[in-house]
Amino acid sequence: MTPVPSFGSSSPLVITDFLYRARDLFSAKTITQYQDDVTVFEYTYGDYADRVFRLAAALIDLGIRPGDRVATLAWNHYRHLELYLAVPLAGAVLHTVNLRLEPDEIAYIVDHADDRIVFADTSLLPLLDTARTRRPDMPVITTDGDGAALPSQDGLIAAAEPLTDPVPRDENDLAALCYTSGTTGPPKGVGYSHRALYLHTFTACLVDGHAIGERDTVCHVVPMFHANAWGIPFAALMTGANQVLPGAHPAVPEIATILANEQVTYTGMVPTVAVDLVRHALASGIDLTCLRALVLGGSTPTPELIRSIEEDLGVRAYQGWGMTELSPMGTFARPPRSADGDPQRRYDYIRRQGRLLPGLRWKLVDDEGVVVPHNGVDRGELLMRGPWVAEHYFRDEHPEAFVDGWLRTGDIATIDPEGYLTIVDRAKDLIKSGGEWISSVALEQALTTIPHVAEAAVVAVPHVRWQERPLAFVAPESGHALDPAAVLDALADLVPRWWLPERIEVVESLPRTSVGKLDKKRLRSAAEGHLFVDTHNSTVAGSLR
Amino acid sequence: MTPVPSFGSSSPLVITDFLYRARDLFSAKTITQYQDDVTVFEYTYGDYADRVFRLAAALIDLGIRPGDRVATLAWNHYRHLELYLAVPLAGAVLHTVNLRLEPDEIAYIVDHADDRIVFADTSLLPLLDTARTRRPDMPVITTDGDGAALPSQDGLIAAAEPLTDPVPRDENDLAALCYTSGTTGPPKGVGYSHRALYLHTFTACLVDGHAIGERDTVCHVVPMFHANAWGIPFAALMTGANQVLPGAHPAVPEIATILANEQVTYTGMVPTVAVDLVRHALASGIDLTCLRALVLGGSTPTPELIRSIEEDLGVRAYQGWGMTELSPMGTFARPPRSADGDPQRRYDYIRRQGRLLPGLRWKLVDDEGVVVPHNGVDRGELLMRGPWVAEHYFRDEHPEAFVDGWLRTGDIATIDPEGYLTIVDRAKDLIKSGGEWISSVALEQALTTIPHVAEAAVVAVPHVRWQERPLAFVAPESGHALDPAAVLDALADLVPRWWLPERIEVVESLPRTSVGKLDKKRLRSAAEGHLFVDTHNSTVAGSLR
Repeated sequence: MTPVPSFGSSSPLVITDFLYRARDLFSAKTITQYQDDVTVFEYTYGDYADRVFRLAAALIDLGIRPGDRVATLAWNHYRHLELYLAVPLAGAVLHTVNLRLEPDEIAYIVDHADDRIVFADTSLLPLLDTARTRRPDMPVITTDGDGAALPSQDGLIAAAEPLTDPVPRDENDLAALCYTSGTTGPPKGVGYSHRALYLHTFTACLVDGHAIGERDTVCHVVPMFHANAWGIPFAALMTGANQVLPGAHPAVPEIATILANEQVTYTGMVPTVAVDLVRHALASGIDLTCLRALVLGGSTPTPELIRSIEEDLGVRAYQGWGMTELSPMGTFARPPRSADGDPQRRYDYIRRQGRLLPGLRWKLVDDEGVVVPHNGVDRGELLMRGPWVAEHYFRDEHPEAFVDGWLRTGDIATIDPEGYLTIVDRAKDLIKSGGEWISSVALEQALTTIPHVAEAAVVAVPHVRWQERPLAFVAPESGHALDPAAVLDALADLVPRWWLPERIEVVESLPRTSVGKLDKKRLRSAAEGHLFVDTHNSTVAGSLR
Repeated sequence: MTPVPSFGSSSPLVITDFLYRARDLFSAKTITQYQDDVTVFEYTYGDYADRVFRLAAALIDLGIRPGDRVATLAWNHYRHLELYLAVPLAGAVLHTVNLRLEPDEIAYIVDHADDRIVFADTSLLPLLDTARTRRPDMPVITTDGDGAALPSQDGLIAAAEPLTDPVPRDENDLAALCYTSGTTGPPKGVGYSHRALYLHTFTACLVDGHAIGERDTVCHVVPMFHANAWGIPFAALMTGANQVLPGAHPAVPEIATILANEQVTYTGMVPTVAVDLVRHALASGIDLTCLRALVLGGSTPTPELIRSIEEDLGVRAYQGWGMTELSPMGTFARPPRSADGDPQRRYDYIRRQGRLLPGLRWKLVDDEGVVVPHNGVDRGELLMRGPWVAEHYFRDEHPEAFVDGWLRTGDIATIDPEGYLTIVDRAKDLIKSGGEWISSVALEQALTTIPHVAEAAVVAVPHVRWQERPLAFVAPESGHALDPAAVLDALADLVPRWWLPERIEVVESLPRTSVGKLDKKRLRSAAEGHLFVDTHNSTVAGSLR
């Protein structure tokens, strides 16, 4: 028997490598800061790296030790991007806090993460009031202040010498931490190891993924507090892509101006923002064909949005699907070569969630945990696993979200024989009607194809006979009115008769969570306590709003 | 002090994952086998995977245990591709043996690797005579035989049930082994861990690398016995690219036909083959614009070859640089965005060795090991390190090739401020003339720009006064004659006067190693024992050939 040779490597997979790479190979590439629709700052990767090395040294001087959490509460700007690398370079954990949360939610998260320091935009300081009351000894540093009231990031950098030796890190050490926005219960912490983010960064640069490369100028529209802005900042550093940051409170017309001004080649956003962007571009005539890719993520885009991006804007649309627990990317929807020249087939691939990223594994299981075949028809809960998939939450809470090392995504899905994923529904959003399932997502998609319906949301309402029946909320396009009966008539041509909602509620707009997703929790509580007692034209026990 | 959380993953980086991926996501994509210029076989990834799972089970039945080496001696064909995955799936180590070696060299390598089984093409069996005499108990299986004289691969597959559970592997376990062709001393074994090949595969699919993706049809012109055919077979499996294999003894006109027939989008080859391919395509008028990329590697392409690929063929040229010890890719030469629209600048980027692949680190050091700056001028020996860079040879021989975990590449190089590598010379190919260095590579490149010079090689010859002086060998284009004096005159316009070779030898063609590289060892031994005693028009003591 011959010995089994092991060929281990002394090179750990640590994301701080990308900083050295940006400095050594791409020192002249640029980071451009906008506020509203004007450039307020621009510097090179060389200058960026110098500030990051100083900031990391300053963190260590402040007492930050390996594994400590350093929080950020900030918009998309270059100083936030400096913290993205300086915190891991100091051996610490970057904890990006969602600025759309309430002060008490932020206090909960900062406490739960045991953050040692917080870096915050001056304009966001009030959001920290509760947290600072609870943790009076926790230093707060302003990213953009002048150092008068509180220490400032620029002040720290000015006073520090560049760090010469990075703090050694094992690739399994945490580099970042992000809390899920939590549509149920309190937020859960998702930790990202260096190895997870490193490998995830590679996938962002694959030709079949976001395809970020040296030729790109990327614009970070996705908030940097949201799952590392899909990991695109790390990908840009790794490849030397130019980066453009839109600053605080970016509005759609400003985003359009920035994309055109900077000849941005890649950006990603949630479908609701993309809908507004398309509308604005068409109304204003602004040319966005500089974009080689507009990637949609966060929720499922409508077929019409995909068509409009491709045909009206002349820009390639893609869909990325993921979760905070997936670092965040799990799949990417890029039409296969076989769909070339057939727009309808292309769009049909893009509107689904796409193919599994290399490195990950998945399976569908039924209620009993039995594996469901990938035939494009049978549904199951999607389970995922891989080097950048969470296997537990921070502090090991919520073990029920994992089974045998697999993450339970909570999504009900099909996978077709070509390996394309379709998310049918959130497990808890399926409507159980008389022993059959109705997909709220499918109903919502059908509703949004009806003229003048801008948005739609469907929730389950208990029914005395059928167990559950659908209730639909629809919002009209601005300047239009919707008649519930007409919407129901139009829908009858699009879905099976027994799927038709018991009631159509016309609302001005739909409630959304802090990261722009439909807030079904709020819709459900609006519908709570109500009961359908008959089908169609049924009497609803009480008003729903 | 808070505890440092570790977020290890239970998902190891093992290349057999790509087989599952090919089967589950790309089962309808194809592998097409040519012999000469006709298709002899085609099957799908689904059928491929089925055969691989059976072959892996058969290997285990044959007694192959984790870590055992399984040798292949084979051309580029689908059964070789089956072994690429079946051997690691069985937990064993794929040892690809160079079929251009002599029987006694092969015997040395098979013995050194302690191969348990050899899979060989029937036509190559005579190359194994010495090895089989030395290891009479080692089973030999033919890849393509009918099972009459020796067991055959098809026979094994037909008799086996598919392996249901892969043999568990640690990511640091060896997956493959390849011996360097050894221009000095006996061949050295380079081991590739699963982790190394896995990460290397990702780099092959980066948009700034080979950019292999689902849209591609790749043709393996690079021999599969040569550093895993640059890792492209693994990249194709990972992304679902179609694969085309040219079979035994591929000649350039056949390769051209295959590329055009199959509308191949990506291929790679050594510059000497590319020169012939361009010549053939121009003479025959065959259209190769199906190629999105023709990647040159193995030796430095001439500027004229790059220009001709781009302008005469209408195909994008790139250069990949690497070594067996780098799995094999280290850099990739893709012009930056800033060179768009300026062909001359683009070619100037492509003729250099390119930018470091993400994940790797490099440095230049002088004779004392002191780091040399990356200013594009100062030269040093190139040292490399990273997850897919060898840190020792198989059986830990030749420790002198490594220093503090860094691989000494033996190449003398510059790196410019943009991070582009230029290999100036092999350390041992520099010519030390009167205390100054003359680059043999630069002389060779200058020589090949002279009309009717097809190839050139320069070696050092001892000189009584100057220590060493250059001796040049030049081969004319077919149908042309070269006059040494005229070549010297032309060269005088291209290089510093003191670089001019003492002598120009016109030869019919240059000797090459088994992998197509210039065989300077043979040229040096041809020049051995000779001494220059004067500069220019000097008397050479004895004939050189």
